[in-house]
Parts: sequence; C-alpha cells; structure tokens
Amino acid sequence: MSDTGVTVKKNQDFSEWYVEVVLKAGLADYAPVKGCMIIREDAYAIWEKIQEIFNRKIKATGHRNVYFPMFIPEGFLKREAEHFAGFTPEVAWITMGGETPLEEKLAVRPTSETVMYATFSKWIRSWRDLPLKINQWCNIVRWETKATRLFLRTREFLWQEGHTAHATSEEAEAEVMYALNEYKDTVENYLAIPVLTGTKSESEKFAGAVYTTALEAIMPDGKALQMGTSHNLGQNFAKVFDIKYIGEDKMDHYVWQTSWGMTTRIIGAMVMIHGDDKGLVIPPKVAPVQVVIVPIPFKGAEPAVIVAKAKEIAETLRANGFSVVLDDREEYTPGWKFNQWELKGVPVRIEIGPRDIKKGQVVMVRRDSGLKEPVKEGNVLAAAERLLQEIQDNLFTKAKDTLQEKTSTVRSYEEFKRVVCDKGGFLKAAWCGSADCEAKIKDETGATIRVRPFRKEEPTTGCVYCGRKATEMVYFARAY
Amino acid sequence: MSDTGVTVKKNQDFSEWYVEVVLKAGLADYAPVKGCMIIREDAYAIWEKIQEIFNRKIKATGHRNVYFPMFIPEGFLKREAEHFAGFTPEVAWITMGGETPLEEKLAVRPTSETVMYATFSKWIRSWRDLPLKINQWCNIVRWETKATRLFLRTREFLWQEGHTAHATSEEAEAEVMYALNEYKDTVENYLAIPVLTGTKSESEKFAGAVYTTALEAIMPDGKALQMGTSHNLGQNFAKVFDIKYIGEDKMDHYVWQTSWGMTTRIIGAMVMIHGDDKGLVIPPKVAPVQVVIVPIPFKGAEPAVIVAKAKEIAETLRANGFSVVLDDREEYTPGWKFNQWELKGVPVRIEIGPRDIKKGQVVMVRRDSGLKEPVKEGNVLAAAERLLQEIQDNLFTKAKDTLQEKTSTVRSYEEFKRVVCDKGGFLKAAWCGSADCEAKIKDETGATIRVRPFRKEEPTTGCVYCGRKATEMVYFARAY
Repeated sequence: MSDTGVTVKKNQDFSEWYVEVVLKAGLADYAPVKGCMIIREDAYAIWEKIQEIFNRKIKATGHRNVYFPMFIPEGFLKREAEHFAGFTPEVAWITMGGETPLEEKLAVRPTSETVMYATFSKWIRSWRDLPLKINQWCNIVRWETKATRLFLRTREFLWQEGHTAHATSEEAEAEVMYALNEYKDTVENYLAIPVLTGTKSESEKFAGAVYTTALEAIMPDGKALQMGTSHNLGQNFAKVFDIKYIGEDKMDHYVWQTSWGMTTRIIGAMVMIHGDDKGLVIPPKVAPVQVVIVPIPFKGAEPAVIVAKAKEIAETLRANGFSVVLDDREEYTPGWKFNQWELKGVPVRIEIGPRDIKKGQVVMVRRDSGLKEPVKEGNVLAAAERLLQEIQDNLFTKAKDTLQEKTSTVRSYEEFKRVVCDKGGFLKAAWCGSADCEAKIKDETGATIRVRPFRKEEPTTGCVYCGRKATEMVYFARAY
Repeated sequence: MSDTGVTVKKNQDFSEWYVEVVLKAGLADYAPVKGCMIIREDAYAIWEKIQEIFNRKIKATGHRNVYFPMFIPEGFLKREAEHFAGFTPEVAWITMGGETPLEEKLAVRPTSETVMYATFSKWIRSWRDLPLKINQWCNIVRWETKATRLFLRTREFLWQEGHTAHATSEEAEAEVMYALNEYKDTVENYLAIPVLTGTKSESEKFAGAVYTTALEAIMPDGKALQMGTSHNLGQNFAKVFDIKYIGEDKMDHYVWQTSWGMTTRIIGAMVMIHGDDKGLVIPPKVAPVQVVIVPIPFKGAEPAVIVAKAKEIAETLRANGFSVVLDDREEYTPGWKFNQWELKGVPVRIEIGPRDIKKGQVVMVRRDSGLKEPVKEGNVLAAAERLLQEIQDNLFTKAKDTLQEKTSTVRSYEEFKRVVCDKGGFLKAAWCGSADCEAKIKDETGATIRVRPFRKEEPTTGCVYCGRKATEMVYFARAY
C-alpha cells in the first residue's frame, strides 16, 4: 500500500497506464491461474452498484432472477449447429468428476441458451405462461488464447444474461430494444460512458441469433469496446429445443426469443475513459466511496476538535445517503492520503484543518478537475450534492466530446486506411452490405463494423471498399 | 401451472412431499445435467433476501465482497495436504481448453482457501494491512456421487465464503464466533429456524482447520441439517502459503485465519421445517411476496369497483415497504388462486368481494394457521404489519417446540440405538472424547456428533458407547 503513485502517463503508454492504475488502485489483480483475474473490493462494489441499478430496472418490468447450472452436456451445446460452431473453440471442458472420467464431457457455460432452453420447453405450455422473462447473474468461461487484459479479456468473467420467450415476433423485437435501451441508460447515465447503438453485421452477430444489437463505446486509444449486446433469436432455438405453446387459438406455436448480456468489462471501460495520470476517476453514481474526509492536524492545533468536526460532517452526509470515508488514520500523512484517494478515484475530498475550523468552513476538492473551494460548514451537504452531480455530468460531457472527436466520416478507402492508422476511433463510412468487403477491410486494416445505426443515413459515396452502390452508412473501428 | 395441488402428505412420505412441494411451488427444478438443479424465481428471490441481510451485517463490520477465479490449479489444492485429501474425491476437473489438453488440470473450486491465500501472501505486508476481511458470493462444485436432493445435495450450489486474516489468535477466534453468531441471527430471526451451535469433533471438522464451529437444525423427519460453518484455520494455511506480516515490533509473523460459509441448502431447510400439506410457508421476513390480494368478482357486482379497491390497498401496502401481488388475472378463479398462492407460501392473503366493499372491509387470511379475520379498510396496513410479525414469531416458536421435542437425552447405548431408530432427532449423550467410540457409533447407527456445545455440561453418565469416564455432553444425530 505504500507505493501509490502512478508512474506511467495516460497519453504516453495507454496500455501500461491502464494496467498500472487497475492494479495500484486495487480494482483487480492477476490470479495464480493463467488468463484469470481477481475482482477486488472496489471493483466488486462497483459491480454491485451496477447489479442494483440493472436489477431495479428489469424487475420493475417483470423480469425475475434465477440460477441455472454452469455445466452444459456437450450434446446440448451441439444442438444448435451455428451456436456450437461459434462457441466450441473457446469452451473449457470438465472430463473428470473426482477420480472418475465422465461419460459425456461437460462444457463450462460460455453462455446459457442451450442449458436454459432445454428447460423452457418444459416450463412453457400455454399462452398463459408467456412472456417468460428471466435473468441470471453468474460467471462465464471462454477459453481465450490471447493475452489477458484485466476486465477486458479474461478466461472467466462475470455477467448478467437475460433470456425471454414471447408469443409474437413483435414482442421479441420490442424486448431486444428494451434491453438495449436499459444498457444504454446504465452505461451513459451511471457509468458516464456515451455509446453508439445499432445492429451488428451478419458476420459479427451472436452465433445462433437472427440479429444482434449492441452498444459500442470508444476508448482513449481509439479502439472500440462493446459494452453489451441484445439478440433477437427468432425461433431458431425454439425449433431446436421444441419450445412451443398452445395459443388462445388452441394451436401449437413456437415461441420467439431474445437474450442479452452485459459483463464486468464495462468496469474496464470506466477506468480507461475517465481515469487520468493520478489514477481512477469514478463517476459519483457508481462510486463505492463518494466523499472522503481528511482531517489535517497541525502542530499546536487540537486534533480532537478537527476529528470531531470531521465525524459530524461524515454523519450528516451519511444520513443523507452518501457513501463517506473518514480517513483519520494516524499512521499516514494528509499528503499520502490525498494521493491514495485520488488514485482510488473518490469524486470529492473534504479537507478540514485548524484554519478551517477557525473560519467555520471546510475545503472541498473535485477529483475530476482538481478545483478546490472553501465551503461554509452549514453548506457542506448542499455542496456535496451539487459537486457530485457536476462531476457526473462533466465526466459524461467530456467523454461525449471525445466520442465526437474520435468519430470521422471517411469518403474513400485511402482515407479509411489513413484514419485507422493515424487516429483510430469510429470511422463512419458507406458500405454496400457485402460480407466480402467487410472481411477484406478487416484483413487489411483490423477494423470491423461495430454498429449499423438504427436510423439509416443515405450514403454519400459508393461502398468505401468496392466503390459499388452503398446501401447504408456504418461505423467501423478496431476493437478490443 | 394448472396442476397445483400437493398430493403427498408431509407426515405420510416426508421425502416425497418435499420434492413435490419444491417442484410444484416452482422453487427449483431438476437440470438436464445429472446431479444439478435450477434455482427458480422464488427461491432465487429468497436467496437475494438472504444476501441482502447478510451483506448488511458483514459490510457494517468492515468485510468487503470480492470475486476470485473458480479455477484452482491442482498444485495449489495440493499444498495443504489435509485439505487436499479432504476435497479431492469430489473435485470436478477441467482438462481441456477448447481443443487443447491443459498442461495442469484445474479444479473447479470446492472451496476457495487455496486460490485466495496464494494471493493473500501478496496483499499482506505489514500490520497496517490487517485484519483483511473479505467475502465472496459464488457457485461451488462438489462432485457428489449420492442421489441429488434439491437444495440439500447437488453437484453445484451457491454460497458465500468469508475469509479473514488477523494479527493475533484472539482476533481470529473472535471472528469465528462473529460469523457463527451472524449465521445464527440470519437463520433464526429471518428464516425462523432454531439451531444448536457448538464445535465439531476432530473427525467432522473442515479439512485443514484447527477447529470448526457449526449451526445445526433438526428437520421434521428427525435428521439434522448443517446450516453453516465457521472455521478457525489457525496458522495452518498461513504457513503453507507463506502469509506473513511485519508487526509493529518490526518482526515477521504468520497471520491467523478464519473461513466461514453458508449455502443455498438453508432454503431447503426452510421448506422442510415450515411447509405443510398445502405447500410452502415462507417466513415473512424472507418472502418474495408477503401479501397477495385476490379480488373476488361476483355475479351482478361491479368488478371494476373491487379491482380499484384492491389496487388502492396494494399501493398503500407497497408504499409502506411491503411486497405485494395483486392477482387480478381474469383467466383464473379465486379458488384456483387461493390454492396457487398457498402452495407458494405467501404469508398473508387479502380477499375483497362485493360484500366486503359494502361493509368497508377486507378479509385477511394467515398462511400459517389459516385463520381469517375481517379488517376495516382503514386498518389494513396495521393489520398486515401485525399479522406478518405474528406469523414470523409463530413459525419460529413452532420450530423451536419441534427442536425441543426432537431432542432426547439418552443414558445408555441401548437407549441411543432405540431413539435413533424410533424417533431420530438430536441425541444428547455423554462422550469420552474418543474418535474410536464416535466412529463405531457412526458405523452402527448412522449418527454422528453434530455439535459439541460451547457451554460444557457435566456428563451424568459414562461415555454412551464405551462406558468409560465421559468428558462432555454432545449432540448426535443422523444428518443430511
């Protein structure tokens, strides 16, 4: 805990800076198991906030949480061929129980469609059982072979996965958009990360879906990060797992399904977007600690008076629902504490020294801007409310400016290649709809279609790759 | 959903009754994977309540939640020999990642001591880093070979595991008792299940612990169920994983550790203890739905008036923090709804019919006793509060009577064997402390020592098995 300074600058070596901040701020640690990570106290507290926010939303709209087994017999995973092909290269397999080899090997869930839907066919009998709307918070395993990136790419991660079944295609479509919009609200209004939304191209969609919608954010290094996906599964799985209901018309019908997921990687996005050379900057709405109070004892002054005042302020703030730490540890200096809490990204710091006591004030310091202001004792609560809201808004506005700054409209493939290399970010370009052009662009530049916006824009040029007639404007980027 | 009646009586075939209630009430379902279960909506909601209750307790005392990887390299598990020997027969092993055999096979965590403590040695440097108090909510795998019992014995289950490291042995001892007492409070005052507490014998303790404390409840069939355990690990793991701190004395010291866990099986205990021939009876403090309102339309009466009144009452109750369902579905009859919500164990039902409207009243029905009382509209909130508290208290009192009734003091081995067979329950008996007597009793009767009470009682006879001088009175039982 003694070595708290961040040694790498964010704009100097972004990737190194990221790792250093995550480790030193104590958000995560490498696990003794290759490819895995430990989600530490503050990061888990942020995840709990996200759970609280998202649970409130989905429960209010009739979704209920459940827990399905994490083991999926190989035969189940195989039933939907496209799905199996998509996931099998990165499945971890259980082959032994105790000393005994298993008859059929078991996949550790890379996603739960197959294990859940086998049971849906049992639970759903009539139109009265629809819609079925469930969600689960759990661990997921995908056997990545690329190097680990804390939060962004690990062999095990945490997520939620919503799974719904509906009587009509229209209801399923509405549900896909419902989940996507709740993700957007969570990510933009709580994590302060602006996103683009839209559908994925055929080659980027979820294995087994009719179509996939997604939200994508841009990181300071110009790479896109997928923040959540919501899939329309149509009747693909319903037919494979025989999920039918008897309608009010007394006839058998296959259900229409959706699934949608959001993972712990969004915590990584939060670090990358808002962090600075001093460490984390956590948006107030998800901050485990919103306000830290540091008493500043001084030679000759009475420390008990200062600490008593600090406690009084802490109690007032806590009574009003704020999460507050009073750091009155005697073994550390105020300067050390400032660095420590800045590293940890606490939005507001309150300093109280002997001079403040005399003046009946405190000093409040914003983590995002570093601005200090003296605040009269009686106004601390109102000031905390105001500052936290200002910080929340400011983080989002700054990130939105970055998103705009990092979005380029390109008119030719030459320009495309130049912007990908020099600047990165989102490249808005005309596309003819051909998977071939998409694949070639990916091969040649590393950029993929991140989203096809819902609101179609008239192409202003031919396809950025082949020059033939384009059907839409889409957003490309290199991505995590 | 149409087949809601429980067909087996609780005192007729307890085991069958249990399975039928769990399945029909929709608490759980068998999974397509052998030995696993699906935790369904209402059971998961109860688990979320338990999480909320327990998180509040442990966070208030400085414990923080984290998430460690579920994969443990075989080498780690092996480091503490006794621990490895204890767990290895029931470990599920990952041997393949994608198409590639792993160099070292990975255990799916049967418990997380080894994977966590390897990292503790990195996190703990000085006395300033102590105590370290963390907790994790996660899935656990133990490859049971015996038949599955929903909630009680499945290959995968959910739990929380607390892990702490302290500077002194005294602090670790206090922590062991802290966790045990919080379990006792959770189980007794929320799930309304009375328990015995005490230490385990050497042969029943956690593999790798210095000693284990536990809470044990008795089920209606006379079998004991372990409801939670709290272990003093001493310095056993600290020495193996080299977890040392530099004290204020500038010297190196090994830390003193504890670990403690409580699993989803306590939901099974709740079903067994409180349920009846109509289905579940859920203690109000953990009930996903505390009050159900069933409007009773009647020929000639105005249904809109009744439903409007029902909505008004629902809103009043919700505004005061109660969880309420207004069941105004038109496709089901009131009688069907009564059965359904009784099956699901909702503590209080409110019926509103045309006659009630005329009288300005509702009828409130207790799930535990079936007692009905007319309540004036203006008194519904107060009555709901009172009834829910009465039900909570009544369930605990009844269970406490059962615990007493099912506890027998036995003075000879003849009596011991007779009581084990005829009545079951806890057998309080004198024991000489020999593992040999304990093993023979287990072999011959199936009963094990469930707890050695903290407050020692003077033995009134010689050892119940060998007749030699006894050192203490202990509680035996056959157990789940």
